[in-house]
Amino acid sequence: MLDADRGNHADISRHLAARRPGHTLPAPLYTSAAVWAADCDAIFGRHWIAVGVACDVPEAGDVIAVDIGPSSIVILRDDDGALRAFHNVCSHRGARLVPPGRSIVGKLVCPYHQWTYNLDGALALAPHMGVDFDHALHHLKPVALRDVGGILYACLAAEPPADIKELAAVMEPRLADYDLRNAKVAFEQDLIEEGNWKLTMENNRECYHCASNHPQLSLSFHAADFGYDPENLTESERAEANALIDAYAKYSAHWTEEGLAYEPVEHTVGWPTNFRTQRLIIAGLGESQTPDTRAAVSFPLGNANRPWMGDVHLWGINSWNHIMSDHAVVFIAYPIAPNRTLVRTKWLVHADAVEGEDYDLENLTAVWKTTNSEDAHLVALAQRGVSSAGYRPGPYSRFTERALDEFATWYVARMQASGYAL
Amino acid sequence: MLDADRGNHADISRHLAARRPGHTLPAPLYTSAAVWAADCDAIFGRHWIAVGVACDVPEAGDVIAVDIGPSSIVILRDDDGALRAFHNVCSHRGARLVPPGRSIVGKLVCPYHQWTYNLDGALALAPHMGVDFDHALHHLKPVALRDVGGILYACLAAEPPADIKELAAVMEPRLADYDLRNAKVAFEQDLIEEGNWKLTMENNRECYHCASNHPQLSLSFHAADFGYDPENLTESERAEANALIDAYAKYSAHWTEEGLAYEPVEHTVGWPTNFRTQRLIIAGLGESQTPDTRAAVSFPLGNANRPWMGDVHLWGINSWNHIMSDHAVVFIAYPIAPNRTLVRTKWLVHADAVEGEDYDLENLTAVWKTTNSEDAHLVALAQRGVSSAGYRPGPYSRFTERALDEFATWYVARMQASGYAL
Amino acid sequence: MLDADRGNHADISRHLAARRPGHTLPAPLYTSAAVWAADCDAIFGRHWIAVGVACDVPEAGDVIAVDIGPSSIVILRDDDGALRAFHNVCSHRGARLVPPGRSIVGKLVCPYHQWTYNLDGALALAPHMGVDFDHALHHLKPVALRDVGGILYACLAAEPPADIKELAAVMEPRLADYDLRNAKVAFEQDLIEEGNWKLTMENNRECYHCASNHPQLSLSFHAADFGYDPENLTESERAEANALIDAYAKYSAHWTEEGLAYEPVEHTVGWPTNFRTQRLIIAGLGESQTPDTRAAVSFPLGNANRPWMGDVHLWGINSWNHIMSDHAVVFIAYPIAPNRTLVRTKWLVHADAVEGEDYDLENLTAVWKTTNSEDAHLVALAQRGVSSAGYRPGPYSRFTERALDEFATWYVARMQASGYAL
Repeated sequence: MLDADRGNHADISRHLAARRPGHTLPAPLYTSAAVWAADCDAIFGRHWIAVGVACDVPEAGDVIAVDIGPSSIVILRDDDGALRAFHNVCSHRGARLVPPGRSIVGKLVCPYHQWTYNLDGALALAPHMGVDFDHALHHLKPVALRDVGGILYACLAAEPPADIKELAAVMEPRLADYDLRNAKVAFEQDLIEEGNWKLTMENNRECYHCASNHPQLSLSFHAADFGYDPENLTESERAEANALIDAYAKYSAHWTEEGLAYEPVEHTVGWPTNFRTQRLIIAGLGESQTPDTRAAVSFPLGNANRPWMGDVHLWGINSWNHIMSDHAVVFIAYPIAPNRTLVRTKWLVHADAVEGEDYDLENLTAVWKTTNSEDAHLVALAQRGVSSAGYRPGPYSRFTERALDEFATWYVARMQASGYAL
Repeated sequence: MLDADRGNHADISRHLAARRPGHTLPAPLYTSAAVWAADCDAIFGRHWIAVGVACDVPEAGDVIAVDIGPSSIVILRDDDGALRAFHNVCSHRGARLVPPGRSIVGKLVCPYHQWTYNLDGALALAPHMGVDFDHALHHLKPVALRDVGGILYACLAAEPPADIKELAAVMEPRLADYDLRNAKVAFEQDLIEEGNWKLTMENNRECYHCASNHPQLSLSFHAADFGYDPENLTESERAEANALIDAYAKYSAHWTEEGLAYEPVEHTVGWPTNFRTQRLIIAGLGESQTPDTRAAVSFPLGNANRPWMGDVHLWGINSWNHIMSDHAVVFIAYPIAPNRTLVRTKWLVHADAVEGEDYDLENLTAVWKTTNSEDAHLVALAQRGVSSAGYRPGPYSRFTERALDEFATWYVARMQASGYAL
Repeated sequence: MLDADRGNHADISRHLAARRPGHTLPAPLYTSAAVWAADCDAIFGRHWIAVGVACDVPEAGDVIAVDIGPSSIVILRDDDGALRAFHNVCSHRGARLVPPGRSIVGKLVCPYHQWTYNLDGALALAPHMGVDFDHALHHLKPVALRDVGGILYACLAAEPPADIKELAAVMEPRLADYDLRNAKVAFEQDLIEEGNWKLTMENNRECYHCASNHPQLSLSFHAADFGYDPENLTESERAEANALIDAYAKYSAHWTEEGLAYEPVEHTVGWPTNFRTQRLIIAGLGESQTPDTRAAVSFPLGNANRPWMGDVHLWGINSWNHIMSDHAVVFIAYPIAPNRTLVRTKWLVHADAVEGEDYDLENLTAVWKTTNSEDAHLVALAQRGVSSAGYRPGPYSRFTERALDEFATWYVARMQASGYAL
């Protein structure tokens, strides 16, 4: 670490130490360029973060390039069908090997000087480097990659946190029915939110804002699933809350019978790899997050063919997911700037489902396209506010925003564990 | 203050200390991002700055949101008709409460989670916060606001400078005739100048540049009012200067008779609240700053119905104003970036004046729309120049740029008084 | 130097010291804003850099304004026909005197307050400054300027490096035949490359990337001129390489006979003023870098009327040039931001050559317009890569990238000599 960085480092450590439990973060943690760079380093550089889905690269030679802050990685399926990831950086002059998005390749050939790598990252060809040039020293730099039930997590650090195995242990059985590894990406949307990535993550970890901001999502979503103040309900709210309690009693008996895990699992404060999962009841007719709450696809994902399987909800450090019987939606947030975050949303359906026949793309994507757009507006309002001289960290509701409080606590602890401690 | 900030702080203090009397500021004071942030903090955060006019919010429930650098405030008229200002930041998660521009509201409702504030800033409703939640602790953060003859000044700091009373004492009587509090905003223009806010302010404090850059303004404006070198005039310049001296002798006798204050009052170096005022003769036919120098509106502001009342010129820290018998023009500068400044111009007429009948909007706004655009070009040239390695602080004319020298001296002193001292 | 700067200074010095011989630069030297500012200061501010051609300002009163990073200079031909350069900054309030591009003037008049300078930089007129004002103290700040065979080099520093005389000694005789001082600029192109200026310079100092990226340039260019690995050639490559060796033997005998210098001269590591020159054989029909490798202009530059004069190739700190018998192409790189560089390309022909009659503009400019566009893409790929967490400095080929290794070594040494040393 160098001098000016050392000054920033001490500043960041003090901002982290100043965070008050139960409250939103001190302003600079949402607004400062130095903090953002530290987040890219410590969180996005040293933790397991979501980067895509296995069915992004279904065949040998399929490649995607994914930008993570200023960095870029390549995810590919090698000739043996195995998933691999590398830094998207040629070992020669550093040029980006693979363009953004999807490609199909036999080998990875750098467009600059034709250095050529096998799909296992070995340098196969480097013209004009001399007879004594040791190709083995110039292997592509590998990136740790884990496929958890078809969702891909990568860690840019040399020694990734070991607790990814906890995520796998919890989620592999819960995702097995849906066979996401063999699904297909029916649609992908990139949306830029004008806010810090942590405001994006806070926003999706609560549904306190749903009733007045997400009329369409509310048709298939029980906001009460994310908590409510039990001592301050109107008659009709209480009736609704009680009905939901009864429904969970009925559903959970059914789920138990079917062998479907549903209990919430939280793995947040105290762990490097932050995740939370729970099986939720879908509201309305209960099938799917669609405008009419019915399945959008005419046949299920994998063998998720039992009715009322609900919504397997899974949150990670930079992602959230809804896995339903007919389709799954995977949301991944990538930091672009202190006040800009890319949200990439993928809608997954069975690999054999045919657009126009087995599903209508507009119907499949309507709820979350609308909801994403509404959320982008809210995140921008929050970013503008926390940048203001009048901002002071405010109190989280212990009923509806407990998960945000824990996310903030987790974030501070992980930054401190990554060296940003006084 | 933190480590990296401490480095910046010492740098800024040295740049301020390096300023040479009679000369423009050292380059970093116009160009550095750290200085700009310090200006937002020390000048725009701890001084009385212009933020609008009382007739921006004529009725109870009228609200405007005004951005001041990275901050935002809400100015409103409450149910009792009183003016109030608050930070435009929800006490919950910090979201911006009120969108930019004008709104009409019953209460202030945060779009994020429906926290609801009365127009006095009290938190009326905060769903799901629990029975033990103390609403009183989450009042909107108030902002000090003063209405001086219908022009609004705010101070973001907890302890605003006391000398706003001097501004009020001088200006209330001088503005009384015009009854600006009950005027209306006929037109508003936002223009971005590609320069530091201090270059915007320097530009409007001199008319040395008028003759060759503002042909239209020069029809109604005597550049000589802003000083000239008496020993270096052509015959015709001398004749003009002497004619203006004679005119002032005649006008001031008339103004005295009518009880109209006209003497210059300067309240700059040595005070926190910088202002200067003087009643100026309007050139040409002498009625108004219009293309034909005649009144643009068919009846006067307030009871400003005596002929040849001239132009009450008032400069502040971030504003300049021309108040004439038929209309007033209020200019307010807001910092956007080290090299970008928003100039918001408001044209005020009598509340009962009807566009198209009592005034022609194009005629009303022509002179200053043109002049603003010419000034934006000059400020951009100055910003480009001071950013160059070849820039050295240059000499102000002691005849035509004395007010700029004083503004620079005031600025350095205020920054030093705000803690940016060695 | 101030506190925060001092921190940056130490950081930069450590990054420079970390550079490993034979390898690309450490990432921050390509990406950091502080390093970029230091480059503008130490390299572009204290070395001789290319800024244009003498025939940019053929007549007395011709002026061009050239932006160099945040700075701007004026180059003009004075009333005596002499070339002069000044900082493009008025001595009064610092406004930029001359707009970008070309103008024709009698005197230099600042648009802000009409301060007026003679073409020798003397302040002729400064209104309202008082009888005691000393005009001599406010001369335009001169910039050192050298015309080397018609190519202009400037140095912003007060004490420019003395070794510009080495450049002149080598190049004046080599350029004499072409009489570039009396040529004309037939076309000029501004192209922004999305990369650090050093990546732009590295890219043009090798032709390792030509075969697969520049199909059109390769028709008139022997990539082998820039080196190859002699122990690793295919049969056809070896045949080609040997043919080129034979061709040089033949050409150099011919050039010797004609008195045309052709030997490479390298003046890089160990010198402030970095340059390299060599006369190259043009491939194909051997006349010019055009799509058909024939001359684009129907009569030669100056008296460069002997066939097969080849291509006088000249590289500088921020420029590269190809001078051929029928036309010359001058490329100059200007830093715009850490990751943005302007490449300005000028095509020169005989002053009497008439477009449409003596040359077709499309044919004249085709090869380098295409090649510039291809290079911009490569530089952007390199910039994206070196910004990535996965980037590590990679090895230069000792055959094809020796000039890059030397440029990197020169750059580190010059930065250290400019004070960025531990």
